[in-house]
Amino acid sequence: MINKPTLLISKSKVERNISRMVKKAKRSAVIFRPHFKTHQSVGIGELFRKMGVKQITVSSVSMADYFAAHGWDDITIAFPVNLRETDKINQLSEKVHLNLLVDSAYSTRQLAGSLLSETGIFIEIDNGYHRSGLLPGQIQEIDEIVKIAGNISHMVFKGFLNHAGNTYNAKGKVEILSIMNDAADKLNALKNKYHGRFPDIITSYGDTPSCSLAEDLSAFDEIRPGNFVYYDVMQYHIGSCSLDDIAVAVACPVVSVYPGRNEIVIYGGAVHLSKEFIAADNGFKLFGYVVNLTGDGWSEPIPGAYVSSVSQEHGIVKMPEKFIEQFKPGDVVGILPVHSCLTANLMKED
Amino acid sequence: MINKPTLLISKSKVERNISRMVKKAKRSAVIFRPHFKTHQSVGIGELFRKMGVKQITVSSVSMADYFAAHGWDDITIAFPVNLRETDKINQLSEKVHLNLLVDSAYSTRQLAGSLLSETGIFIEIDNGYHRSGLLPGQIQEIDEIVKIAGNISHMVFKGFLNHAGNTYNAKGKVEILSIMNDAADKLNALKNKYHGRFPDIITSYGDTPSCSLAEDLSAFDEIRPGNFVYYDVMQYHIGSCSLDDIAVAVACPVVSVYPGRNEIVIYGGAVHLSKEFIAADNGFKLFGYVVNLTGDGWSEPIPGAYVSSVSQEHGIVKMPEKFIEQFKPGDVVGILPVHSCLTANLMKED
Repeated sequence: MINKPTLLISKSKVERNISRMVKKAKRSAVIFRPHFKTHQSVGIGELFRKMGVKQITVSSVSMADYFAAHGWDDITIAFPVNLRETDKINQLSEKVHLNLLVDSAYSTRQLAGSLLSETGIFIEIDNGYHRSGLLPGQIQEIDEIVKIAGNISHMVFKGFLNHAGNTYNAKGKVEILSIMNDAADKLNALKNKYHGRFPDIITSYGDTPSCSLAEDLSAFDEIRPGNFVYYDVMQYHIGSCSLDDIAVAVACPVVSVYPGRNEIVIYGGAVHLSKEFIAADNGFKLFGYVVNLTGDGWSEPIPGAYVSSVSQEHGIVKMPEKFIEQFKPGDVVGILPVHSCLTANLMKED
Repeated sequence: MINKPTLLISKSKVERNISRMVKKAKRSAVIFRPHFKTHQSVGIGELFRKMGVKQITVSSVSMADYFAAHGWDDITIAFPVNLRETDKINQLSEKVHLNLLVDSAYSTRQLAGSLLSETGIFIEIDNGYHRSGLLPGQIQEIDEIVKIAGNISHMVFKGFLNHAGNTYNAKGKVEILSIMNDAADKLNALKNKYHGRFPDIITSYGDTPSCSLAEDLSAFDEIRPGNFVYYDVMQYHIGSCSLDDIAVAVACPVVSVYPGRNEIVIYGGAVHLSKEFIAADNGFKLFGYVVNLTGDGWSEPIPGAYVSSVSQEHGIVKMPEKFIEQFKPGDVVGILPVHSCLTANLMKED
């Protein structure tokens, strides 16, 4: 029985989401190295493994450590290398195939001085998202990194990696595919430049919007989407998925009903759903859609119902009058989260 | 040694923040029942206990259970009662003095039918925040709740409670104190109405901005601030505290430095700091201030430096050119969080 906010996962939807991406990667003949930061779950990891996935992406040394302890032995940490964790990195790279990201000669040099076992190095390329990575034109810095990596026998230069987080702000499929094609051009130009000396280098590309919307991903050697395993309301708004593809919901007890306000209050707030929201210019904020729970899952979203505000433990749900009447304190509703990665992180079993 | 995002707590600042509020409550002759949702920490709880605090507020049955297991025996769950947890509530009220919140006759009636031991009941009043609670004018509903409580021997009507979350959006001290005085008037009018029949009922008032800015809280019988134990950048912006009162910082490794962008990237993102931000009309967003860590704490914020964006694990820090030069990957900076309650929740030890 559900008595407090509880993460519900639709195994059948998760399997369908994974299967679709596995097939697309196969058709495109690219390596499929899904990002496990979204679910951070050994159990969900096993569903990937059953579909043949052997290589994964994570976003921290701690996460790499966690999955390595559960039998994953080919892991890319897609985050600028944290030089304060080189001891842990060395412990890991003794046991598993580990790839790290660098985006400066400085970090590469520091790393070169402390690595003890064979470790792969991707150069992160920033193609417009401007979070981390070197710009494609920073050839002098790239040259220097490649030179350092080339001189250290256990530092294996693996190629160029990009996370196109800018697709999250793109307007529709055409713009997203344009970002993707531009990234492919830039990554391939860099690969071609160094391919002669390093014949095994690859291009690696991330992000769920591109990988969901593109039919053909063969412009890359590897893809690393993560969010697609669950999807969420933000991906639905971007156009990456249908509502029916969203594979997680948070079951939340109803604690108060305010017919005069057309609102109900749920036990389910920022510490369950996160503070991520979708905003419109008129001040409208959306922290999640509302669904009815069914015996084996949940309904379509209730039309016009949404989480309009969250504080630490409270969520305020607005909904049309005719639906309000169906609820009373003690009921349970489901919330489709805006950002499933953050929700799943918050709802991890302690 | 700090090698990943780590919550730092200044014990001396925490003690000073608690001591100041303890003294103010004593001067005002009000019960001090601090909200423990901010820290959710047994250790911080002990600092309160040493200063004579015996009664506490929490925001969930789980939190009540946690603190009850650590010797706290007078607890108010300041959240509309969750009817799906009545079993756990009954277990708790057998062991400790437990107070619950109701804001409908429906919930009160359901609760009356399931309570087994003596339990206190506050009626939550909504005085403008419009999250949960009955409006002061909903006398018919209030009458009905009081009647139900009056007829059930182990349901003890405790009085009227308000959380003035609307102070968080107020513009300065004058407006905050005006919200507080209005709440005092409304709560006292309700108390006076029922005082004849229930001579022990009290008024209980929350929120850190009011309790920090008001010199005199004697208009109430009880205060329940929580955030003041740590304060944060939001409270500083509201005017509730000085920068020096902020008692938490998240130590974050620097992983990339981009002099051309006047930005550094830290290992410290939404899963450490939360997605809470302070926004300005021009699109400016602030997710935290940046401080230098010192041997025994941290510096004043670096002028002009702030966290401008967070994704799951990355934080982007903007700072003036002259400060950027001081940083390199492998360094550690401190971040003063925008909302310490959410940050502390995320950084709880698993």
